[in-house]
Amino acid sequence: MHHFNRSEIDQLARFDRARFINSLSGFKSANLIGTIDENGQENLCIVSSVFHLGANPPLLGMIVRPHSVPRHTLENLLETQSYTINHVHSEIIEAAHQTSANYAKGTSEFSVTGLSPQYLDDCPAPFVMQSRLKMALQYREHQPLAINDTVLVIGEITDVYLPEKALRSDFSVNIEACQSVAISGLDQYHSTTTLTRLSYAKPDRDLTTLEF
Amino acid sequence: MHHFNRSEIDQLARFDRARFINSLSGFKSANLIGTIDENGQENLCIVSSVFHLGANPPLLGMIVRPHSVPRHTLENLLETQSYTINHVHSEIIEAAHQTSANYAKGTSEFSVTGLSPQYLDDCPAPFVMQSRLKMALQYREHQPLAINDTVLVIGEITDVYLPEKALRSDFSVNIEACQSVAISGLDQYHSTTTLTRLSYAKPDRDLTTLEF
Repeated sequence: MHHFNRSEIDQLARFDRARFINSLSGFKSANLIGTIDENGQENLCIVSSVFHLGANPPLLGMIVRPHSVPRHTLENLLETQSYTINHVHSEIIEAAHQTSANYAKGTSEFSVTGLSPQYLDDCPAPFVMQSRLKMALQYREHQPLAINDTVLVIGEITDVYLPEKALRSDFSVNIEACQSVAISGLDQYHSTTTLTRLSYAKPDRDLTTLEF
Repeated sequence: MHHFNRSEIDQLARFDRARFINSLSGFKSANLIGTIDENGQENLCIVSSVFHLGANPPLLGMIVRPHSVPRHTLENLLETQSYTINHVHSEIIEAAHQTSANYAKGTSEFSVTGLSPQYLDDCPAPFVMQSRLKMALQYREHQPLAINDTVLVIGEITDVYLPEKALRSDFSVNIEACQSVAISGLDQYHSTTTLTRLSYAKPDRDLTTLEF
């Protein structure tokens, strides 16, 4: 077992430390955030920081760094109060990853990556046509985290689109049926295989396995 | 493609909605949080909400619900300013899941699940001996999120322990080599297979694949 203490972590070169620390939280979600500004300029950006915040109301959080690539995303969603979250699946990994490049504001990541904007129902922000599980979100709040100048963005899910085959009768979603991928570190993409589903845990009862 | 609008989401029964919404963010990390209170009472709790917050300083965030099972975790880490984060791997899924049961404060989840507390270096909080990638964290701050009464807890990584074979020469970590698992929804556990690692994206350069 290798032990890194804090002084050894702090001595790592900048990108070594970024690769190392970004690997430690475990597997991350892979999502494309679709936005549009008031002039109709579209933007698309991959983020690995979307997380579940609550089911009632249905809330998702994400962390953005205002001085790095997702800044256009943040500007746009504050302007229009709307954004979409689109799962990355195994056939669009390269295009999704390419959206993290630092394009000028006037360049749509849709046009350079081959991903197609799609407008559904009354959501002003573009979805990713190729994505198989996608959501419309209404912006609710953001707060700068003084500890490291990142920003926590919170949105409320208003619409969900997913394949019929991914929806189970208990309303859990089989995201493997959408070929959704997981991310580790800065740059590693993974497919998954289900090992088990387990019943709600209680102190005096044995776990049982659920159908998946 | 199935479409749920907001009114259909709101009409789902409580646990159906919890299963549905918890599935939407994508894959989640699977970690055990180890804590101890001032009287030496140990606590262990699985959480799927740990996320990367920053590399410099090395920060991890997690979301806890103060009125549900992780409340002892929150109380303890505020008392002692210390906690550990331990990856769940494929051989300890059932024991890890069982820690989510609502045990009384006087019951250590270590003793009822067969997971073993381990004390390393000068960290007051217990690690999980069976875990293969584990970290000591110093509590930095917490903030209640008024939007739904959850709490964002932020900690700073002070020590990291991992197998030599999982550490690459560029300091990225192959968490598959630790058999770390991913979670989807409330109860589904997944192993992973690496599909690709991709180079840092730039506007005018093609992506290349990295060794993994």
